[in-house]
Amino acid sequence: MRVALGVEYDGRHYCGWQRQKHDPQSVQQNLEAALSKVANHPVQVICAGRTDTGVHGVGQVVHFDTESLRKDKGWIFGCNTNLPDSISVRWAKPVSDLFHARFSALSRSYRYVIYNHPVRPALGMQHMTWNFRPLDADLMHHAAQVLVGEHDFSSFQAQGCQAKSPVRTIHHISLYRRGHLIVMDIQANAFLQHMVRNIAGVLMAIGSGKEPLTWIEDVLGHRNRNLGGVTAPPYGLFFMRVGYPEEFNIPEPEPDAPFMPLS
Amino acid sequence: MRVALGVEYDGRHYCGWQRQKHDPQSVQQNLEAALSKVANHPVQVICAGRTDTGVHGVGQVVHFDTESLRKDKGWIFGCNTNLPDSISVRWAKPVSDLFHARFSALSRSYRYVIYNHPVRPALGMQHMTWNFRPLDADLMHHAAQVLVGEHDFSSFQAQGCQAKSPVRTIHHISLYRRGHLIVMDIQANAFLQHMVRNIAGVLMAIGSGKEPLTWIEDVLGHRNRNLGGVTAPPYGLFFMRVGYPEEFNIPEPEPDAPFMPLS
Repeated sequence: MRVALGVEYDGRHYCGWQRQKHDPQSVQQNLEAALSKVANHPVQVICAGRTDTGVHGVGQVVHFDTESLRKDKGWIFGCNTNLPDSISVRWAKPVSDLFHARFSALSRSYRYVIYNHPVRPALGMQHMTWNFRPLDADLMHHAAQVLVGEHDFSSFQAQGCQAKSPVRTIHHISLYRRGHLIVMDIQANAFLQHMVRNIAGVLMAIGSGKEPLTWIEDVLGHRNRNLGGVTAPPYGLFFMRVGYPEEFNIPEPEPDAPFMPLS
Repeated sequence: MRVALGVEYDGRHYCGWQRQKHDPQSVQQNLEAALSKVANHPVQVICAGRTDTGVHGVGQVVHFDTESLRKDKGWIFGCNTNLPDSISVRWAKPVSDLFHARFSALSRSYRYVIYNHPVRPALGMQHMTWNFRPLDADLMHHAAQVLVGEHDFSSFQAQGCQAKSPVRTIHHISLYRRGHLIVMDIQANAFLQHMVRNIAGVLMAIGSGKEPLTWIEDVLGHRNRNLGGVTAPPYGLFFMRVGYPEEFNIPEPEPDAPFMPLS
């Protein structure tokens, strides 16, 4: 039987999603250990999107196969009892064998949160990126629109990224201000490693006036990471949701997940 | 010269506001160490309200006396360079010698945030209190109104509280739901130790149906902590603002301080 789970995590405690030989503190390793206890056999999970060190998960989706019969609540509460406070299984449901957390996904959505104030905050330092330079959110939104559609995003791809192709399709990207917070919401079919943070880095340079509006088009056109901008820090980045074909009936993440009351 | 500061802090890293012999990790000790470096002489601060272990500060106000001349920005950025990430001086301004952070205060406001969902969260576990039982926020709001006005709050006072009198005046208290969050906003002339958390504990028992609506009046009437409810956890508690006479012209905390976008 195949089971899908919704997983929430606070990325600051982990080396990222993926199991790493050099660091036992990955989200995947903790989740697989908890699931294996509940299933009573070793469990391996496949996720919709691997997040980097420090990046938070709101609506991560995984699947796994098991012969063990458990109620949905059994998976949820059994796992959460065996998980650290900073990881939680939010829902569980049996799914068709045709469902694949990664390959069935039609889209991934990320949110990047910037605290734009001359004085650094104390609350929330690990859940947003502080930028003390005044940023023009409307200008950033305008600049970002050249990225929409299918492009070669080599300039926004981490040097070590293992993707076979640098071509991705951004469905939409929007930036808006709520008081001192600037929020970037972005959806694409898939993302390259560091792509959201590299886009945020370029947009902050434009929003602060350090670079002109047209710079983002130049960066995109170069198709060369060495001519890109700085990679913005991971703490402001949240993996929000995964879009699947309706037939799989995958639950949406809770709209008012903590720290995410902006909509 | 007397200077006032606005201080924000993430309480989960500290034993509370007050300097303790047994634990160097108090907010006061860290702030005084930073201020002493900037002033170039030992500085002692007086705060508007001492917060307990784990309680967060959004709009804490302090004052101190100094002969050192610094610009407002010198105090702010000088301190923040010498403070840990989880404490920040948000504003500084010279004030009249008649101003006293504690004795000039007319009111204190706290916010208590409850995450009301059957499944525990992963993000924000240290900035709200998780309650898995369905809570009736309207009922809790209704019950809380018997506390408004001047009362003997002995039943809501921590056993070790050093206050001379258990009488306090609550100006207003309101509870409301925003999705899965329940927020309690409370303002009084001053609070006894654990008073807000003890009120939250009683209201959660009523909101979940464990105790009847009238129980809060019984508890208040007993004037006996042993007949009160459980003390709610500190993580959901934020010290939001201090009210002073207008003549002192004390800045308001930022309305969209991080993690506080509800209003």
